[in-house]
Amino acid sequence: MKTDLQIAQECTMEPITAIAAKAGIPEEYVECYGKYKAKVSDKYYNQIKDRPDAKLILVTAVNPTPAGEGKTTVTIGLTQALQQMGKNALTCLREPSLGPCMGVKGGAAGGGYAQVVPMEDINLHFTGDLHAITTANNLLASMVDNHIQQGNELNIDPRKIAWKRVVDLNDRQLRHVISGLGGKVNGVPREDSFQITVASEIMAIFCLANDLHDLKEMLGKIIVGYTYDDEPVTAKQIGADGAMTVLLKDALQPNLVQTLEHTPAFIHGGPFANIAHGCNSVRATKFAMKLADYVVTEAGFGADLGAEKFFDIKCRKAGLKPDAVVLVATVRALKYNGGVPKADLSNENLDALAKGFVNLEKHIENIQKYGVPVVVTLNHFVADTDAEVAYVKERCEKMGATFAVAKVWADGGEGGKALAEKVLETLETKESNFHVLYEDNLSIEEKINKVCKEIYGAGHVSFTAAAKKTLAQIEKLGFEHFPVCIAKTQYSLSDDPKVLGRPEGFEVTVKEIRISAGAGFIVALLGDVMTMPGLPKKPAALNIDIDADGNIVGLF
Amino acid sequence: MKTDLQIAQECTMEPITAIAAKAGIPEEYVECYGKYKAKVSDKYYNQIKDRPDAKLILVTAVNPTPAGEGKTTVTIGLTQALQQMGKNALTCLREPSLGPCMGVKGGAAGGGYAQVVPMEDINLHFTGDLHAITTANNLLASMVDNHIQQGNELNIDPRKIAWKRVVDLNDRQLRHVISGLGGKVNGVPREDSFQITVASEIMAIFCLANDLHDLKEMLGKIIVGYTYDDEPVTAKQIGADGAMTVLLKDALQPNLVQTLEHTPAFIHGGPFANIAHGCNSVRATKFAMKLADYVVTEAGFGADLGAEKFFDIKCRKAGLKPDAVVLVATVRALKYNGGVPKADLSNENLDALAKGFVNLEKHIENIQKYGVPVVVTLNHFVADTDAEVAYVKERCEKMGATFAVAKVWADGGEGGKALAEKVLETLETKESNFHVLYEDNLSIEEKINKVCKEIYGAGHVSFTAAAKKTLAQIEKLGFEHFPVCIAKTQYSLSDDPKVLGRPEGFEVTVKEIRISAGAGFIVALLGDVMTMPGLPKKPAALNIDIDADGNIVGLF
Repeated sequence: MKTDLQIAQECTMEPITAIAAKAGIPEEYVECYGKYKAKVSDKYYNQIKDRPDAKLILVTAVNPTPAGEGKTTVTIGLTQALQQMGKNALTCLREPSLGPCMGVKGGAAGGGYAQVVPMEDINLHFTGDLHAITTANNLLASMVDNHIQQGNELNIDPRKIAWKRVVDLNDRQLRHVISGLGGKVNGVPREDSFQITVASEIMAIFCLANDLHDLKEMLGKIIVGYTYDDEPVTAKQIGADGAMTVLLKDALQPNLVQTLEHTPAFIHGGPFANIAHGCNSVRATKFAMKLADYVVTEAGFGADLGAEKFFDIKCRKAGLKPDAVVLVATVRALKYNGGVPKADLSNENLDALAKGFVNLEKHIENIQKYGVPVVVTLNHFVADTDAEVAYVKERCEKMGATFAVAKVWADGGEGGKALAEKVLETLETKESNFHVLYEDNLSIEEKINKVCKEIYGAGHVSFTAAAKKTLAQIEKLGFEHFPVCIAKTQYSLSDDPKVLGRPEGFEVTVKEIRISAGAGFIVALLGDVMTMPGLPKKPAALNIDIDADGNIVGLF
Repeated sequence: MKTDLQIAQECTMEPITAIAAKAGIPEEYVECYGKYKAKVSDKYYNQIKDRPDAKLILVTAVNPTPAGEGKTTVTIGLTQALQQMGKNALTCLREPSLGPCMGVKGGAAGGGYAQVVPMEDINLHFTGDLHAITTANNLLASMVDNHIQQGNELNIDPRKIAWKRVVDLNDRQLRHVISGLGGKVNGVPREDSFQITVASEIMAIFCLANDLHDLKEMLGKIIVGYTYDDEPVTAKQIGADGAMTVLLKDALQPNLVQTLEHTPAFIHGGPFANIAHGCNSVRATKFAMKLADYVVTEAGFGADLGAEKFFDIKCRKAGLKPDAVVLVATVRALKYNGGVPKADLSNENLDALAKGFVNLEKHIENIQKYGVPVVVTLNHFVADTDAEVAYVKERCEKMGATFAVAKVWADGGEGGKALAEKVLETLETKESNFHVLYEDNLSIEEKINKVCKEIYGAGHVSFTAAAKKTLAQIEKLGFEHFPVCIAKTQYSLSDDPKVLGRPEGFEVTVKEIRISAGAGFIVALLGDVMTMPGLPKKPAALNIDIDADGNIVGLF
């Protein structure tokens, strides 16, 4: 069987200028990065911003399992199918981080015959957006420490610096460090810590900013630390907002690539889906909605985290109205939720399927709470039996959700046509009455309660003393109107990764609350969140190499 | 008076495809990065590699003074002048680092009417080469620490790790750190240290590698640390060489931009000129020499460091034969060397000029030792008097050096014609008998002695006990055939920055010796070398911003 990289390398790509033309973008607004990647100038967005918006379709999924769901693959395959059916469709995806690419999982650009290309570039430096974010993040950090070193006019307490440096790699050695050692001329000694770039608040801001000026304003509001009197100190007070904006100026323009079937695709921004909102940039989504008639996008993790944040953070802030949701499940994932071990997932098991269906059921109900029509799709595996597929179909339709099987991994757009037909039918026949889950004027505590109870199914939410202290601080600082961004395990609807299916009435504890004043949301942590991954014993990097002709091998 | 940024922004650039066409590069080999930057594929180099080589002209300077010499400005202006005179000329420059740009000095892309553009891009992310080097450097670091964490099969002593992480910023807080804190799952605690990206051995390797395979081999030879038994451990043993090469694959292709007068310019690679060799990449220089008839390039710092390393490291390793050297001086710098304080440099002072001329005299003699014809040029300032210029001219010509005044800052290529004429005359009438200063088969100690005595003018070279210990290790490891790369102050021919003019018979001490096994040279430190700069009290970043139209301001 061919690897994803082999399939991708066999694709004869069209020049990116041709893809841009297909998307209706005049050449003068296309900034090429090599022959197959481009950034699209926001000057063109400003010209077309009064056009009607495309239909916006969100692809999300059940809780991830070791069996793999293929959300990105379905997102790409659906877009390819829409194009095959003569529709003007564009997909908006997140851009991958180098860390995981060198660590465990290899590439992140779809799979099989539903991929975006050039996949090597997309998975490596791409157009440099993540490097720009790394640099802007670390410039701010260096300016904060320099401010303290040069007299500390703002009276910053070095023990209360909130801003962390980042690298776009998995590097556990940097999780906990002491910096500023070596005497008076070498900084002020303090406990310090690095994160992976995608966990930077700048990534979240980058993905929520409407334009460059908005970006600058949001960057300026970042709280970098607190004074000895516990007053917040912002990036603007440090004087870093202008230079950071300049460093992010080019990066903020969406990146255009193509699918294996030459459908235009925007890949832009990729924040964490736990401590941040986990979707591609507002900039790309809004731009795409002016260029195409159908925009297919995805959100991170399962629907409890990804879709919830897409709705309650991204759509709320950007004023977007999704028209339909595609909810991806697999027969294997449902059986796994029904208690079948990974090794036995290829055997037909209708009992386990029935038992595990409750996970999908809860996600369907959740999305219906937002007023958006749901299309459930089973991402097809060879071992799926007709009886299993029929069972899922019947249950979904009984709940008022549309259903289709997707065979996009094996067949590309052709394998996504059944799904595309259901999506088009849904868009024509079912109206979206999208609304957010909670209003701005609820307290942060009420907002957290609402998400935990109504979306996760929790019975009670408790707060640690530390979390309560931060809640009081939030009130004092005037951030009560922010939406909440909850960080919990993606493997369960609850805060315990081992609890599968559809848990009910469980208790969750908000251990810590963090303020993302620049991004404009409050992060509530229901568990430990790792913002700096480590490398495994045999990192993927060991296999990545060039062959005799200088081609990349081992990146899959 | 207009700032450099204003002059640069007023330039109507030609599309980079037109500049490539002017350089004779077919469009299929041009990888555009936006409309005004491109990388040129090495596939085209392979097609034209049997063409005759261009004349190679090195621009170097007297020891830098606070008065400023304008080496890059002269390099660009000379190339512009050659083009105005109908010659096919190309310039090869180093690419700037973001650190100094955000710190003290602003941009580094020439000045006045002799600049390369787009200067904002060149000074900021450019085509991402430095980010690629940062990432490759830090991937190796993370893999070394991960190797130790995962069982340490290679028996690496964490106290003897030689490989440091980098950021492309001035960040003194990272000079001395303790990393790997936080318990068993978070690495192994050890003393650690960050450098600025341009100080990475990868930058030196990048600039000396002939092609991608050469790069991989050199990267694999990097010594990352030593075992408990003092045996070296290489990047190849860590298994990082393949992935690092992949990360550097695109970066290794030279970057094409244009001067203000639309002359093609390669800007590629920029290693430190103390702990490394301080010239642009071999890849770019060799490529340029196949495209043009005249290639004008520069070396870092003064001729004692820059030209020496250009000859003894870059030309030796790459098999290059320079045809002429342009030695840049200013009347102001010579008077400064003659004892005039900075504030009085605008007053005519022939006595001080005579006294300070000895610095220039020594550099002329030095270059003559390599068998290369010298053209001395005075980079013109308004306050220079005719008598002063005439004095310098007479002294230079008496030494067998050609002389010309350059007014490129004020007049661009037009102001460089007098210099260009002298350069062309020199190339026609004087043959270069280029040879390196020392042969490979001398010992490292002998090589260091030769450079210190014959180039700097030292009377005696002593070695600390630590340096002697490393010399013994070098012999054991079989690196005696490497050239030496001496790190000393750029402000004096001696190792004391305050000693101006032409010191003789002084003693220098080699304090430390480092092995750059990947780059293939031995670094001898005559003083403390700062490989991680700090930010000043008012960093340049404070002034960098976007205006209402989204244009960059404050970057000069």
